Amino acid sequence: MNPFTDNPAESVASLGERRLIAAISRWLGKATPRGAAGIGDDCAVLPRPRGRQLVTVDPVIFGEHVDASMPPAAAGAKLMKRNLSDIAAMGGTPRAAVIALALDHAVRLDWLEAFYRALAREARRHGVAIVGGDIAHHRGGLCATLTLIGEAGPRVLTRAGARRGDWICVTGQLGGSLPSGRHWKFTPRLPEGRWLAERKEVRSMMDLSDGLAKDLRSLTPDGCEPALDEAALPRHRGCDTRAALCDGEDYELVFTLSARTDLAAFDAAWRKAFPRVALTRIGRFVSKNQAPDGALRLENYDGFEHLR
Amino acid sequence: MNPFTDNPAESVASLGERRLIAAISRWLGKATPRGAAGIGDDCAVLPRPRGRQLVTVDPVIFGEHVDASMPPAAAGAKLMKRNLSDIAAMGGTPRAAVIALALDHAVRLDWLEAFYRALAREARRHGVAIVGGDIAHHRGGLCATLTLIGEAGPRVLTRAGARRGDWICVTGQLGGSLPSGRHWKFTPRLPEGRWLAERKEVRSMMDLSDGLAKDLRSLTPDGCEPALDEAALPRHRGCDTRAALCDGEDYELVFTLSARTDLAAFDAAWRKAFPRVALTRIGRFVSKNQAPDGALRLENYDGFEHLR
Repeated sequence: MNPFTDNPAESVASLGERRLIAAISRWLGKATPRGAAGIGDDCAVLPRPRGRQLVTVDPVIFGEHVDASMPPAAAGAKLMKRNLSDIAAMGGTPRAAVIALALDHAVRLDWLEAFYRALAREARRHGVAIVGGDIAHHRGGLCATLTLIGEAGPRVLTRAGARRGDWICVTGQLGGSLPSGRHWKFTPRLPEGRWLAERKEVRSMMDLSDGLAKDLRSLTPDGCEPALDEAALPRHRGCDTRAALCDGEDYELVFTLSARTDLAAFDAAWRKAFPRVALTRIGRFVSKNQAPDGALRLENYDGFEHLR
Repeated sequence: MNPFTDNPAESVASLGERRLIAAISRWLGKATPRGAAGIGDDCAVLPRPRGRQLVTVDPVIFGEHVDASMPPAAAGAKLMKRNLSDIAAMGGTPRAAVIALALDHAVRLDWLEAFYRALAREARRHGVAIVGGDIAHHRGGLCATLTLIGEAGPRVLTRAGARRGDWICVTGQLGGSLPSGRHWKFTPRLPEGRWLAERKEVRSMMDLSDGLAKDLRSLTPDGCEPALDEAALPRHRGCDTRAALCDGEDYELVFTLSARTDLAAFDAAWRKAFPRVALTRIGRFVSKNQAPDGALRLENYDGFEHLR
């Protein structure tokens, strides 16, 4: 659906700012709390959290993450879920969000309504309160930026921490996210992320957004390289190795396991906790230039480059 | 300065994403903490705050808040300060920020460097740690969105709370912010906001961003209207009543004082705390249609409309 219209009666200009804010509040419904912590003041007010906090920010931009072929609900769901995936990647629990909406006055009201209703649905599903935001004019543009605040668990799992010899593991299957619609239909791995952060064998973790070939660089310890087993790569149906490594927007978790892990016990515990989510060991970190013959050479694959 | 260039060697495309992130980190310098709480992971990690939190988000968008006639440092300073002003408006103390940058690959590197260095300067000046962010491509666009997290004081002063008979007060002078450059040269009223939130005579507060005529509606109690004394309006040199009411981006505080306030004692306490910041009582809230003859009629003045 094209978010822009030539008919002013169908556009946000027909409401003006004040009535548009009221409409957004209605579309968000129970996803936005009433009273002091709600929309409409200079700042949102959040209760004191129980521990450390996680903060992440990601936009959806028309022409980049969203286009006229995508339903507006897909854009709304994607905006919320790509941020949820970042909280999952550190083992946290999402709590509250603010949204900055920058848009042309020719944006269709029905586009925006479907967008916010889908965003609200995902917010409610994952316990996120939309506590505020901002609306600004953006000639010819449409860009929504969501900042998500979460509560950290007892242990925050970061990208740093892997060592030589560690196993590399991924959840789910990889590749083909764009043609399949999985880039917005995915389920953020929140319970899986929390579970993994509680296991001390797990040393580092991130979510896969730019493709395994590129993202894995962030987990690789100095002096090491990943030695991956091409045959082990979990691929979605119809996806080849390149698709699994480079397509990006898988929103699966990739993490590293200490070389001393009791793998059978770990796998059994995982299957008990998440019987329907595949877990695959795809390789290990080895010393640079020490990858065995036949290991996948990642330098031949590129991930998503944002400033192409 | 035009932020866009036809020369790829001068643009962000010459660095690519990874090296651009490293450059931004360098430009931010001490404004971004190293280690676990810094830039480069899926989320930023914040320590547990001492109390409730304030969260606000505001962008600067090229063609709207920023143009080619403005130095890039002005854009960076403005982005930080308009968010600081929102924290001031609720009596809080700013702590941490994340920045989502959406930009065309033809954005000039020197523009971006001056932008981030100015932003970092204001962050350090006000004790804000830049803890993370996101970079995304935005064809033909340039839009930076800052989410600022602050610590609430013992009392959070909101826009609600004024009653019939309350005095209406403003800090500083109003009008002419755009031609004078005050829309980015202003000093956010952070100590003043905290001081006002601690006085129980002060019942409600906000910052002036869209112009007094429009913003005052948010403070007006049901069944009331503001009766303003035109002669009392504190105006910047060369500004008429319309400029003071409608120009917007004053980033001064407007607040309401209980009708029972000992005005002489309040004024004396203010002058002692802030000898160099003017404080002006500009009117009161009266019952609707009960404004005395000669009171300023705000319905003849418009504030800034974001979706014109």
